[in-house]
Formats: sequence, structure tokens, C-alpha cells
Amino acid sequence: MRILLDVMGGDYPPEELVKGGIHIGRRRGIEIVFAGDEKAIASTLVALGEPIGRSFHIIACTQVIEMDDSPVKAVRGKSDSSMIRGLKELKAGNVDAFVSPGNTGAVVAGSLFTLGRIAGIPRPGILAPLPTVEGRDIFLIDAGATSDCHAEHLLHFARMGATYATEVIGIENPTVGLLNIGGEQGKGNRLMARAYELLEAADLHFAGNVEAHQLIKNRPADVIVSDGFMGNICLKAIEGSVSAVTSLLKQSIRKSTIAKVGALLMRRAFGSLRSAVSYEKRGGAPLLGVNGIVVIAHGRSDAETIASAIDVACREVDADLTQKLSQSIARVDSNGS
Amino acid sequence: MRILLDVMGGDYPPEELVKGGIHIGRRRGIEIVFAGDEKAIASTLVALGEPIGRSFHIIACTQVIEMDDSPVKAVRGKSDSSMIRGLKELKAGNVDAFVSPGNTGAVVAGSLFTLGRIAGIPRPGILAPLPTVEGRDIFLIDAGATSDCHAEHLLHFARMGATYATEVIGIENPTVGLLNIGGEQGKGNRLMARAYELLEAADLHFAGNVEAHQLIKNRPADVIVSDGFMGNICLKAIEGSVSAVTSLLKQSIRKSTIAKVGALLMRRAFGSLRSAVSYEKRGGAPLLGVNGIVVIAHGRSDAETIASAIDVACREVDADLTQKLSQSIARVDSNGS
Repeated sequence: MRILLDVMGGDYPPEELVKGGIHIGRRRGIEIVFAGDEKAIASTLVALGEPIGRSFHIIACTQVIEMDDSPVKAVRGKSDSSMIRGLKELKAGNVDAFVSPGNTGAVVAGSLFTLGRIAGIPRPGILAPLPTVEGRDIFLIDAGATSDCHAEHLLHFARMGATYATEVIGIENPTVGLLNIGGEQGKGNRLMARAYELLEAADLHFAGNVEAHQLIKNRPADVIVSDGFMGNICLKAIEGSVSAVTSLLKQSIRKSTIAKVGALLMRRAFGSLRSAVSYEKRGGAPLLGVNGIVVIAHGRSDAETIASAIDVACREVDADLTQKLSQSIARVDSNGS
Repeated sequence: MRILLDVMGGDYPPEELVKGGIHIGRRRGIEIVFAGDEKAIASTLVALGEPIGRSFHIIACTQVIEMDDSPVKAVRGKSDSSMIRGLKELKAGNVDAFVSPGNTGAVVAGSLFTLGRIAGIPRPGILAPLPTVEGRDIFLIDAGATSDCHAEHLLHFARMGATYATEVIGIENPTVGLLNIGGEQGKGNRLMARAYELLEAADLHFAGNVEAHQLIKNRPADVIVSDGFMGNICLKAIEGSVSAVTSLLKQSIRKSTIAKVGALLMRRAFGSLRSAVSYEKRGGAPLLGVNGIVVIAHGRSDAETIASAIDVACREVDADLTQKLSQSIARVDSNGS
């Protein structure tokens, strides 16, 4: 298996991401193709004692798509960027998957432009895994690929999310909930009222409406469907609150010596809390619906996070996910539902 | 000053809410009119040694609008409910404000139906105060009154939010941010792109787009504008995450004796964390844009929370808020902007 890693455009320098790539490449016994600044990649490979061209390869690129670049402009104008070169390698079949911690909008636009969509899927969706109190992740789709959605797009997100949950995660008969502002049918805005009808009529295990406060506390379904705009708002609201609560706790602890002693005794408890709710240490979010395996890693990805994002890509390759998504859409279309 | 409290339709029994009303009535030296089950109200007044008809009054009602009632149906069908009777008292000028912990949709529908809108304001918005890490609240509008919004509605939410921040909270020249999924202009969906243009052109201190993860961590503006659907999603995502993190922390503590000792030493730190992020103990959320002062309290309001919601209503009455909102809209209209 060969995975392409775009080492540019994230918050950490390319060297850090190359380290993560080498780590997971060794562990899984797979090849990693690094796209980006040649010197940074080569020097890290040398420093870690890895020869160039055996398990680890370099695609030297002269351009970088930055976080604040306009996605469509960047995709059109920066053809020698690590992102576009990497996506072209995937399109050409030279690698099995593409992983990037860069500008999310540019990954989405670049993937649509370079790979195209899976036949029958009108819009791509980002599937974000969220940690929950009970331990098992919940999968939110779309977390930000498609901002203006029709109800039919949400139906496709539901089907893709369910296929991912089954084929990659191994959940049989996954349940699908609709992110809404009330439990009963008819709640919410017009988009959600129509999406409810479509989901109810579809060949899915529809769990009805679910509310945002339940997601990580009660895990009300395996897959949560949302339009990309509000999915992204919901995701960031959760991330921000978790981080704010931990900041507040730190503030309170600093104010008192007794609390500091208490915090020392609670080190382990805090550690397990951190690992349970840490969004930054979680792997990547797959972009579903494009013709190839693309995983978007967090912009703040360090070596450990990027390794985990590559791991997500490997699991998709193992599951032959693009093919499975294609088949599940074709099956629905031929059934006429 | 006379405030009407709807004691029915919340999660706690009416007796608990009457206690909260008596407490704040005594403290502020104001009159409270309790609408709801006569026996429950009267017995609580007697138990707390308060005569009926001096500072505390009863409006006996035979119907209750429940949390799962359809708002429009309930408003039309339950004319002897505490909610509708209470709103009619406000309309008639017999009280200065109306406070309810009941069905939010029904409070919105009932207020529109009974009180009508302030001239020039097309849709009402719920203004939700959110605690932030720095201590001062941030005000989110609309938190759930209007699910399907045009950009013009968001402009009005911004004006109402700014007027509230100035007149009730005392913030001079409040800044207004637009809840969006990226910082730069043009990010997000079509609704937000259009709202951005309107807000930028308006006579407001527009702070640009703000993202959901910044809200309680960085307090990026005084007032945050959103459509009611995504505002509600954002609010509930924040509430749910804060509650999930504290549950997880409790779980971790229970697993270890040393952590339990640590937690004991940290009791004060946890207490101040709890009071900083507790949504349930926060007062009410004003419904702005209807012709009268209406405050929606949390469904889980106990005596303390309901007292705090009544306090919010009193501050609005003191500020003559309905008049101020009217004037600020009229001023804008006459300037033609």
C-alpha cells in the first residue's frame, strides 16, 4: 500500500509531519510518498536513517497552498503545490490514498477538480469522528465540505456515512440520526423537515432527529447527518467548549496551592480525560463522495496526529471504500429508491 | 414593578418556581403575579408566610402547555393556559414583563400572536447569554426563535442585540460578530455571505465573521448574530460538551482513590468552574422583537434560576427596552439605511 502525504500547509513544519509518516510507515509496513519541500523531506529521512526510494519517496513541489488562500483560486493557480501534485498522483493510480493537513476548502475543491465525484453522488461530505462519553466515536457528516445543501444531499451523506460505519468501522446496521433542534418530526427549518421525510423513506436505520447536546454525551446514533455549514458550526462549538472548560479548570487550579496538590493527585484522571476528548490527537476526517480516498487531517496535526490520519486512510484502502460507496449508490439507484 | 411568572410547563413543580418568585420579589421589592395551578401557588405562599394579593398575586389557570405540545396548536387551543393568560396580562398592561420556563416554541408563537411584533422588526430573536472564559457573558441572537431566516432578519437581530447590550448590560458601542465557518468575508453559505454585506454596510460596530470555537474561549465580540436554527445548534453543542466534559471528569475520579482525594482538595476549583460554565443556573433568554418584555427561562429552571430570569426581566423593564428597540429601529428607518 502506498499513501501520499502532503506535508505542506499545516501548522507544523514539514519535518514534523515527515516524522509522523515514517513512524506509521514503519509500523504498518507500507510505503509513504511525501509531497512538498524536497530539502525538508530528504533531511528528515536522512536524520531518521531511512533511504529515499525504498519505503519512503519524495515528490518535490515548489508551491504551497496556504490556510488563508481562496480554495478555488489556489487549486487553479498553484499546480505545482504539494496538494494538487498529490491529488494528481492519486488520480493516476500511483498511490492508494491522499492525506493532507492543509486548507480544507482547497482539499475539497482540489479533490472535486482532480478526482471528480463518484457517479450518483451530487456533493461530497466530510465525515468527522467525534469522541463520546461512552468511548465509541460518533460520525458526523457533513462537517464542512458542502455549505449550501438540498435535502437530497443529506440523504446521500446518510448513505455514505452508513457505508463507512459498516465497511471501515465494522458497525452492522448503523443507525443514522438527523441533526436538528428538536426531537419530533416537523421540528427545525424547511431543509431538515424535508430531509426527515427522505431519510424516513430510505433504506436506512433512521433514528429520527437528534439534538446537538446529545451527541457526545448520549451517542444517540452511529452516524449523524447535517448540512456542511451547521455540521461545521456544531463541530467547532464542541471543540471550543471542551477546550474552554479545560482552560477554566487550569485557571482555577493556579489560584490555589491546595488545588494544585489536588491536581497533582488527579494527574491520571486528567490524562484520561484529555485523551478522551482530545480532538487534535484524533486522526483525520475522510472526504467521502469523491473518486478516491482522501483524508483531511487537522491543521494543527503533529507527528502523532498525522500518523493517525494516515492510519484512517489505510483502513479505508483495506476496506476498498471507494468501490463500496459506488456499489451502495448503484444498488439504491437500481432499486429506484 | 410587576412581573408575571408562568409557573407551569417547566421541569420543576410549580411550588419550586413560586419559591423562586417570592425570593426575588422580596429581594427587589417588586410584585410578582403567579399564573398557573391555584392550589400549588396559594399553598406555597401560605407556607412562606406571604399574604395573597399584597406583593404576590395569583391568576388561576386550568390548562398547561406541555414541552411536547405543538406550539401553534397549543397557543390556539389552550386559551386558559398560564402561558396565554400571562401573555394577555402583559398585552393588557397589567404587568410589566412575562417570564416562562415552558415550551420555547409556544412562548415565541404565543408572544407573536398575543403581543405582535415591534414595528419594523420582521422576525423575533432569542438572545442567549453565554458564559465565557474571561468572565463576561457573550450574547448570541437568534438562539432559536426563527428557523428559516433571510439576511435582513440577521441584520435586525444584530441591531436588537446591540441595543440590548447597550441599554441593559451597559456596553458602550458593542461589537457584533457574524457566526460563520471561517474568518474571511465570502466564507460560509449564501445566507451568511449576504448577511456579511448587510452588516458591513450598517451603522454597527461589525467585527466580521466569528467561528463557533472562539465564542466562549476568546469572546470575539459582544454580540454574535446567527439564524435561529444554527444558533440553537451552536448553543446546545456548547451546553452538551460542557456537561460531557464534567461527566467524564467524574468518571475518571471515581476510578481512583488518589484522584478522589485530589478532587476533594480541588473542591473549590471545581465549584468556581461549575459556576462559570453552568448554563442551567443562568437567568433567562430575552425574546426580542415582540411588543413587550418576554424572558424565556431554561426548562430545567429551579427556584434560583427562575429568580435570575425574573431579574433579567426587571433589568429590561428598568431600561425601558421595548421602547428603546422601537426607537433604534425608527431611527435607522428614517435614516434610510
